[in-house]
This record gives sequence, C-alpha cells and structure tokens, in this order.
Amino acid sequence: MTVARRFPTEHDPYPTRLDEPRAMIQRREPVLHGGVRAPGPLSRAELEQFERDGFLVFENFFPAGEMRPFLDEMRELSRDPKMLGRRRTIREPGCEEVRSIFAIHEISGRFHRLTREPRLLHMARQILDSDVYIHQSRINYKPGFRGRGFNWHSDFETWHSEDGMPRMRAVSASILATDNFELNGPLMLIPGSHRYFVPCVGRTPRDNYRQSLRDQTLGVPDEGSLAELARDGGVRAVKGAPGTLILFECNTLHASNANMSPYPRSNLFFVYNSVENRLLDPYCGSAPRPDFLGARANARALRGLRREAA
Amino acid sequence: MTVARRFPTEHDPYPTRLDEPRAMIQRREPVLHGGVRAPGPLSRAELEQFERDGFLVFENFFPAGEMRPFLDEMRELSRDPKMLGRRRTIREPGCEEVRSIFAIHEISGRFHRLTREPRLLHMARQILDSDVYIHQSRINYKPGFRGRGFNWHSDFETWHSEDGMPRMRAVSASILATDNFELNGPLMLIPGSHRYFVPCVGRTPRDNYRQSLRDQTLGVPDEGSLAELARDGGVRAVKGAPGTLILFECNTLHASNANMSPYPRSNLFFVYNSVENRLLDPYCGSAPRPDFLGARANARALRGLRREAA
Repeated sequence: MTVARRFPTEHDPYPTRLDEPRAMIQRREPVLHGGVRAPGPLSRAELEQFERDGFLVFENFFPAGEMRPFLDEMRELSRDPKMLGRRRTIREPGCEEVRSIFAIHEISGRFHRLTREPRLLHMARQILDSDVYIHQSRINYKPGFRGRGFNWHSDFETWHSEDGMPRMRAVSASILATDNFELNGPLMLIPGSHRYFVPCVGRTPRDNYRQSLRDQTLGVPDEGSLAELARDGGVRAVKGAPGTLILFECNTLHASNANMSPYPRSNLFFVYNSVENRLLDPYCGSAPRPDFLGARANARALRGLRREAA
Repeated sequence: MTVARRFPTEHDPYPTRLDEPRAMIQRREPVLHGGVRAPGPLSRAELEQFERDGFLVFENFFPAGEMRPFLDEMRELSRDPKMLGRRRTIREPGCEEVRSIFAIHEISGRFHRLTREPRLLHMARQILDSDVYIHQSRINYKPGFRGRGFNWHSDFETWHSEDGMPRMRAVSASILATDNFELNGPLMLIPGSHRYFVPCVGRTPRDNYRQSLRDQTLGVPDEGSLAELARDGGVRAVKGAPGTLILFECNTLHASNANMSPYPRSNLFFVYNSVENRLLDPYCGSAPRPDFLGARANARALRGLRREAA
C-alpha cells in the first residue's frame, strides 16, 4: 500500500482547495491507459474520440424499454421510508424531494447486475488497462420543477481531494433512465477539459459532502478557467432517450442546469476505478468520506468484477 | 376614471396572492381585442397563431448587426456607476452582477426610439385594438455563469396584483440582443397558457418587488396547474440570433433557466399596454410599485405614442 500523502504537500501533482488561485495544470496520466490499440468493444475511432473529447455518447446502448424496470425501482426507492432515513439519500436544497441515492449497487440486485454489464465493464477495462471496481454508484433524480442543477466540476477534483483518489484513472457511465432534453437540465460537458486540472480555491470543511451533494460551491473551477476551456472546446449538452449511455473521463468538466420542466430527468451513474488507483487518504487532509460515496475497495468486490469481466 | 378596487373583493375577476389554493380561471378578455381581421402588419395566420399559442417569434426582425449598438449601450449601462446606485438597477441574487435595469426607455434615446419602432407599435395596436403606451421596459442581462433564472409566472398576475392592471390587454416584446440558445437559459413558454389565469397562494408583503425581481417566489403557479397546462400545450424554448423578436401575451406563462454557460443571454423587454387598460390601485392592497416598474401613464407619454403610431 502506498503511503498516504496529506495536504499540503509538494508531491501532490493535483493541488486543489487552495487559499490562493493557481493556474491550470496539464494532466499527467494518459487518457487511454492502454493506448488506442487496447483490445475491447470500443473501436479505434471511438478511443481516439474519447481521448480527444473526454467522453462518448451511445444512443440506444440499452433499448429504451429495458430501462422501464430500472425507472420503476428508482421511483420505489425514492418513496421507501427506509431509504429516506438513510445518509446515502440526499435531498434537494430547499425541499424534501430526493435528489440522489448513493451506492445503489449495494441496495438492489438489479443495479448490482447493471454495474457488471459485460459491455460496460469491458469498455472501462479497455480505457483503464486494468481490472476495475465500482468507486461510486448513484441515482440522480432531478424531479420535475424541483430538481436543482449541478455546478461545473471535475469529479476527479472531488475524488482526489476528498476521497484520496491518486490519479486520473477512472471512468464514469451515466445511463439515461428518462428522456434527457433541452428543458429538463441535460448533462453539459466541456470537450477537451479532461486534459487540464483546474486547482480550486477554498479549504474543505469537515463533512463538506453534506452540503456539496445538495449544492456544490467548493471544487468549482474559477470562471476564467471555465471560459478558457469552453472557448477551446465549446460546451456540449447531451440529449437522448432512455437507454442512452454517456461514458466520460473522471476529469472532464461537466454541469447541468435546474429542471424547470414538469418532466423528471432521472439518470444512473456508475464510476469504474482502476484497481491500480485505489483510494489513499484524502488529499484535503480530512477524514475519508463515507464508503457509500467513495468505496475503499475490498478484495471481495474486486474479485467479483474480475471474474465477471474475464 | 374607474374606482380602484381593493383586495379582497368579490368583483376582482382575477383573484390571486390568496391564503388558499383556488382552481384556474378562464380568461375573460379576448386575446385579439380587434379580432382576426384587425388591420396592421400581422397577417391573419399570425393573428390566429398568437390567439392560439399566446406568442409569436420573428427571426431576424432586426438584422443582427443592428443590435450591436444596443448591446454596447447595455454593457455601458451595466458598468456605469450612476446606474449601479439607482433603485431601477437589480442585482443577481448572491452576487453584485447586474440582473436587470428598468425603464431603459427613459434613460436612453436609443432605447426610447426602439420602443416607438413603427412595426412594433402597429403590431401592439393591432392586437390590443387601441392606442398603447409603455407600461414597463427593461434589460435582462443574464450574464455568463452568474445569471440566475426566472421562475414560472404570468406577467399579468404580477401587474394585476402589484400594479393594478385591470384587464388582460397588454403585449410584451422581447428583443434578443445576444444569441439565445439551449445553454444560456432561453425563454420558455407554455403555449395556450394565456387562456387561463392561475390564482397563486401567498399574501404579498410590502415592497415585494425588491425580492421578487431577484428571485420570484410569490406569484408562481402551483406545480399541478403548470403540469396540466404543459400537458396540453407543451413547453417551447425560443432560441434565436440577435434581432429575433418574441411577441407574447401578458398572461402567457413563461420562465427561463439559469445561465451556466460562459455566454451572456442579454435581451430587451418592452411592454405595450392599452390606453384603455390604465393602472388602478394594486389588487393586492399594497401601495403601487415605483413608476419604473409599472408606469402610471401620463397624458404626455400617451400623446407621444399616439402621434408616432398614427
């Protein structure tokens, strides 16, 4: 096990949550850890596109009809009194509506199996060039009228500082469970932003996640850096029917607006991390966040994924 | 002069800001006060569309290049220390960025002339079947990253309760000064919603406008009514280049999302009210809002518009 590094340290390649602004940093790790020739379900053209943009979109990755049981179970979970009392259930700011439920693969056999869907697993392994495990899973409900947005952020920035993820070697799968369209706050990404790390200003308070999962203010890049990256890469909003898959790199900047429409925008979200990129102590110096936000992977979980992905 | 009616009154056809929810009310006035045969620049098909949907969109109403001086002046105004100290200048919630400036036709010769643009004036007269005057004018800046949205509302609901506008006989012109597109919070409208008045719950506090112009919570229809109207009419987001005109009925429900993009969504907004629909005392029972929000039309202003529109 690598020795944990604590903030502040000269050895941290991705310093963030700082007292003073600091310029963007070029990422150190490759985007494609096995290169463009890594074997797997993604074509060379797809790998090159992922390397360039930091994400790929697959329409009809699952037939829309197959998403129905997932949506039904998502709705049941959001109404289940047992779930409502749990820490992993996050409410929308300003109301009691459920915003997110975390670690859903531990709660539900159906979601557990979905995280192990062979095509997903093999794509993650192809990009990360190693075995993988689930670092985080969640449902984002974004209910009609009440669903608030998600501020601009790199997931890696949070996972590095608050969970101790050492390197950029993780990939996220967002699976659309309802129609995502211009009116209900679709995911927006800045193509190419994954090639830079934007250090963010502001020390991380204890238990920051209780606030940040409802309304993120820390770990949000400064507007100058966002504008610069958007000038280069533009901003892309991903719309699609249920069953669409968005595969995105852990450091790709993304955000989404509030849902002002009557139509919920409910999505599933799984993060595959390389087994060679296990969590250390958080770089922000705080205690690790709960396991339902960042799994401190155990051998059993890893063996399971290895076997099924083989 | 009609005698002012104070809240609560049995004679108010459009009760709102109530203690208890109340069902939607069918509008009393026609949408086209002069019917579909009223003479003017709008074709019969356009008039019929306005009657059905509650709005019309004209791309390239002004050539995009002609909007440049307006945008330049809008930016100057937002940086002018004199303007920043005035009550008519409204800041974004949570920051010092300018959200809106009101009564811009009184400040600037360029904007004054634009409110008197003959095609605009004649369309307003054609719909309202009378002379008109400017009830309100404003710039909405919605700056990049910081511009917050506008909650669902009918303008008439506010103008009736807080300004004493007796009837639905006003029409708004929104003129796009920057590109409005899916990422910077374009105007969303519910087609057909202008045919119903949705009474809203919540008494109006004194000087409500100081809060409501930054973040409107009163005068927002209940989610059930919004969903019902959206089920019938859908929701339409209007995108367009600078110079696009959106003409919409005073009671059409509309909203817009926050601007999470780097690109400002800055628009002009003029309200033409019929001279036969002058403001009375506010129906909510409070003192009238300042003149920069709802003009208590004087004879001079009215004569001016009559002459130029003749």
